[in-house]
Amino acid sequence: MKSRIVVMILILLACTLSGIGADEISSAITLHQDSFDMIWLLVAGSLVFFMQAGFAMVEIGLTRAKNAGNIIMKNLMDFCAGSLMFWMFGWALMYGESVNGLFGFSQFFIGGNDMVLFRNWMFQVVFAATAATIVSGAMAERTKFSAYLIYSIFISALIYPISGHWIWGGGWLSRIGFFDFAGSTVVHSVGGWASLVGTMALGPRIGKYVSQGSVVTSKPILGHNLPLACLGVFILWFGWYGFNPGSTLSGTDPTMALVATTTTLSASAGAIGAMIVSWIKFKNPDVSMSLNGALAGLVGITASTAVVSPLSAIIIGLISGFIVVFSIEFIDKILHIDDPVGAISVHGICGVWGTLAVGLFGNTTHIKGLFFGGGFKQLGIQFLGVVTVGVWVMATTGILFAIIKKSHGLRVSKHEELAGLDLAEHSTESYSGFQIFTNM
Amino acid sequence: MKSRIVVMILILLACTLSGIGADEISSAITLHQDSFDMIWLLVAGSLVFFMQAGFAMVEIGLTRAKNAGNIIMKNLMDFCAGSLMFWMFGWALMYGESVNGLFGFSQFFIGGNDMVLFRNWMFQVVFAATAATIVSGAMAERTKFSAYLIYSIFISALIYPISGHWIWGGGWLSRIGFFDFAGSTVVHSVGGWASLVGTMALGPRIGKYVSQGSVVTSKPILGHNLPLACLGVFILWFGWYGFNPGSTLSGTDPTMALVATTTTLSASAGAIGAMIVSWIKFKNPDVSMSLNGALAGLVGITASTAVVSPLSAIIIGLISGFIVVFSIEFIDKILHIDDPVGAISVHGICGVWGTLAVGLFGNTTHIKGLFFGGGFKQLGIQFLGVVTVGVWVMATTGILFAIIKKSHGLRVSKHEELAGLDLAEHSTESYSGFQIFTNM
Amino acid sequence: MKSRIVVMILILLACTLSGIGADEISSAITLHQDSFDMIWLLVAGSLVFFMQAGFAMVEIGLTRAKNAGNIIMKNLMDFCAGSLMFWMFGWALMYGESVNGLFGFSQFFIGGNDMVLFRNWMFQVVFAATAATIVSGAMAERTKFSAYLIYSIFISALIYPISGHWIWGGGWLSRIGFFDFAGSTVVHSVGGWASLVGTMALGPRIGKYVSQGSVVTSKPILGHNLPLACLGVFILWFGWYGFNPGSTLSGTDPTMALVATTTTLSASAGAIGAMIVSWIKFKNPDVSMSLNGALAGLVGITASTAVVSPLSAIIIGLISGFIVVFSIEFIDKILHIDDPVGAISVHGICGVWGTLAVGLFGNTTHIKGLFFGGGFKQLGIQFLGVVTVGVWVMATTGILFAIIKKSHGLRVSKHEELAGLDLAEHSTESYSGFQIFTNM
Repeated sequence: MKSRIVVMILILLACTLSGIGADEISSAITLHQDSFDMIWLLVAGSLVFFMQAGFAMVEIGLTRAKNAGNIIMKNLMDFCAGSLMFWMFGWALMYGESVNGLFGFSQFFIGGNDMVLFRNWMFQVVFAATAATIVSGAMAERTKFSAYLIYSIFISALIYPISGHWIWGGGWLSRIGFFDFAGSTVVHSVGGWASLVGTMALGPRIGKYVSQGSVVTSKPILGHNLPLACLGVFILWFGWYGFNPGSTLSGTDPTMALVATTTTLSASAGAIGAMIVSWIKFKNPDVSMSLNGALAGLVGITASTAVVSPLSAIIIGLISGFIVVFSIEFIDKILHIDDPVGAISVHGICGVWGTLAVGLFGNTTHIKGLFFGGGFKQLGIQFLGVVTVGVWVMATTGILFAIIKKSHGLRVSKHEELAGLDLAEHSTESYSGFQIFTNM
Repeated sequence: MKSRIVVMILILLACTLSGIGADEISSAITLHQDSFDMIWLLVAGSLVFFMQAGFAMVEIGLTRAKNAGNIIMKNLMDFCAGSLMFWMFGWALMYGESVNGLFGFSQFFIGGNDMVLFRNWMFQVVFAATAATIVSGAMAERTKFSAYLIYSIFISALIYPISGHWIWGGGWLSRIGFFDFAGSTVVHSVGGWASLVGTMALGPRIGKYVSQGSVVTSKPILGHNLPLACLGVFILWFGWYGFNPGSTLSGTDPTMALVATTTTLSASAGAIGAMIVSWIKFKNPDVSMSLNGALAGLVGITASTAVVSPLSAIIIGLISGFIVVFSIEFIDKILHIDDPVGAISVHGICGVWGTLAVGLFGNTTHIKGLFFGGGFKQLGIQFLGVVTVGVWVMATTGILFAIIKKSHGLRVSKHEELAGLDLAEHSTESYSGFQIFTNM
Repeated sequence: MKSRIVVMILILLACTLSGIGADEISSAITLHQDSFDMIWLLVAGSLVFFMQAGFAMVEIGLTRAKNAGNIIMKNLMDFCAGSLMFWMFGWALMYGESVNGLFGFSQFFIGGNDMVLFRNWMFQVVFAATAATIVSGAMAERTKFSAYLIYSIFISALIYPISGHWIWGGGWLSRIGFFDFAGSTVVHSVGGWASLVGTMALGPRIGKYVSQGSVVTSKPILGHNLPLACLGVFILWFGWYGFNPGSTLSGTDPTMALVATTTTLSASAGAIGAMIVSWIKFKNPDVSMSLNGALAGLVGITASTAVVSPLSAIIIGLISGFIVVFSIEFIDKILHIDDPVGAISVHGICGVWGTLAVGLFGNTTHIKGLFFGGGFKQLGIQFLGVVTVGVWVMATTGILFAIIKKSHGLRVSKHEELAGLDLAEHSTESYSGFQIFTNM
């Protein structure tokens, strides 16, 4: 009996002497685990937030000087209105308790005192805002600002969160094995599909397509500030190091190193791929195509970044770069859809390609693509996801834009468009003092 | 007796077998705790540093092309001279051993081998530089560069550190319970008050106010580069994710998630608030007002970001957005004080509002505002802090600018102002090759 | 006997009750240690990546509008081609198994499943890209794009990795005690030497030097966008907080705080030093010289940042600022070498100075400089490293540029140069709609 007591005292003594108790160790380790996740998601989320600046600069740079202020307002309000909407409804519909795998329905108006909830909301709201912002470039230079605001509210509050729930919120697509690591479909293709519907609802900018008899010619409308477009691409790429590696959702998951590596290589290959195609097609290495190629490579790798090898990432990126040039040309020259910055191609088409690439190049225990012995199963599921999300977004934005068009009006007047939206919608000019040819 | 020895051996064995001793565990946990703080403060500090670029872009964008190079020099030297000053004197006066709660007085010329000291200096120097830089926008387009340098040295070496000591350095305001989490008063209102005194000492830019009889009319002087102003606002917002969450000063304090959330929501609400007011007042959603609204929301939430709910943050931000438009209009149209970028309103007035908001919306165990059952106590203390810091900054900068004006001269000549400060002060032009109307 | 069993049960019980076993503790601590390194290097690496945007903006800003798109392409492709090259060959030659200390030779085409390898590759590839990009500014406004691509491939695949191996890959210079903490020599002087050879191989821009009899006059060719140059410098400085502190290569090494501090102070002193010299020499505080002074201070501190005191850092930075102005003037006015952005001086000359500064100001147990009782030993080793790396880079790039010149051609035609490389090489204009004087 005595010896037992002695033993207990000894154990206590050993712990006390070392200045740390088992409970303290346990709680320190738990705190540290939580702190890795916290710091990682907040830093990554901040980087993703900064992508808003990247989108603004790319879209400003690739359009005309007379509409720069309007693009600023659209990008700013995408985030500002979007974040309030995602606080009220978006989070609840995406990550709330699932109603039959179709949508979430709890945790509206985030509040209380749960720091993990705030952390997760913070990381997710910047993704929602990214999806919303993609559309602003496609609809640039002719959309009524107030109409755009209405669209922006609905995509952040309703459209994005619901398809997001299917994939990231525990909904039906995730249950059948659909895989989208950081959002080629969840974020980018949603923006891409909405861009497609938006541009079709709007029609092309004045002067973009000239008809002579039955022949329609596409006229180039040059962007006014390539240095800002370049800056925007570098900011987006920089932000992507939050977007993709942050999507481990864990600060201690070493997969983040593979993610950063495949992201880097795919973006590089994308820019090179687009440069090569443009060099062959246009006889010159095209600047804006190469910039869009880098973005295409980034969008293309986003779904599969954690489940493919560096070599696969280079192939995925290179193909993204090829695709984006042909897609931009096809949408402009053949379909005569006027997408000033190439958003449909970069985010929509390459988002689809990236999602399918999971089913081709995936090579982990759980995800096996066609080229690595997984057969057509994963590819089929990926295809199903692509199609259903596309249908969902096109149907809802189609209805939305149709209603706006009928009730409020979607497009500025011809006079306003020619004068420029800065003057017509915001009574300002973006480059006061500079001599600018505004008749372009 | 035997059994005791057996027990001790067993404990040692258990520890040895697991490959880790109690001492090792203890020191690993301490190292990790320190490393969280280290990484968090260095990353956050880097983000705050980057705000210098944001300030530069906002100020350049909202003023005229002929003064852009001068603004670059002022912003660059604010940081460069400021960091040397804060190394020599500022840190010592702010965080040195307190002399009766009035100022610190030790650790001049930081040196030695204390990594925690270097870490803290690094995090604090970027806050000091922020306060200094705010003023450069308000005094833009007419201040003598050499005079500005003198001001910049004094604010970083003396004025900012002393009121900073009262609140963050353990001084008298902190002792009576004044609360300013990340610097609505410590940083922003200091910059705001100095801006007010500086603009009054300078007088308005030539052509800003036109008198006809007793009627004074304010003429708009448009900024020359809204895209850069937009970029600057996004950079500032991005940097604010270091400014506010970093101010937990601990890498394991989960409050950083609430801070990031309230910061995001307040900034968003601020931009929306300013847009709405401008839309009603001017019949158009104003670009630069909306951008300033986002900054107003950020300044407004800075003091209370860790002690208010997301809903309160939205209200604080929305009011900040309202305030900033009315304040800019009032200062310009009624007071006829010429503040080219709205720094007095954004940083001064919204800094005051944000500081008082702690006493209204604060809702934690220690900080209870008026609306959450805390009565007028906290509000009263916050008010006292606002007033005393305001008096301190206005008195000292008042004396400073008066002396500079008498001895050295504060303002460039009329000829130099019309030619532009780039040419007059730096013999350069910022946009060589562009056709610019410099007679504006 | 019984008591022993009791003891064992008690120990097990103690562990079980606290919810954590010794093995779990051990593996949690290992995971956390690895996670610090992982997060630190990925975040720092992302910051270094962002420096690409900084280089692009600085180079665009300090050259003419008609070549901006070409600079974008060169900077973009430096990274994109460079990262594929560094994936294929660069890493293997730099960090593969050492062949007699001369070069590495293993791990070509990084693959497999080693997350630490991916992490290290990610952190190193952004340094390789930095070295490559430096040259693009020096060779701006007259280099054939295709020729530049060839250069860019060789420096990332071969030239940079081999001298890098000598110093950071365990090669011969590291074995004799050469010290370069974050790359004054490894990265910056490599870029600087290649710039020197490149500009000499190219010759000056048309109109830069005008001969009258035997007198050659240097004509200033002003940069077209100082605000972008300013933005670029701030981005570079921001990225340097990844470049230098990240070079601890460990997320738990508190030296990162000293590194951040000395980096900040040296950059500040560099800008001030260059401003003072320019003020005295040109009677005006020069904008682009001050901006280059900040970069000079950053390059100058990079080698010694972890082994010098804050005061030494200020002296090193101040001298860097002095050097850069005199060096830019000397290279332009006396040597008549046309380096549009001052890359040879900023990265080459200040890179050399920074490397030697280790041997002067170093003051740790292992590194003792001349001024701190270490005698001439370290200084001699540093000098040897500077010379051998310089010889290596100048010899290899000399051969490379000579071959390109003979076979492919290095420079655009006179007609193309006058028209601008945007039009001639990329069939675009960077500022469509702006009235620009292109005859400059």
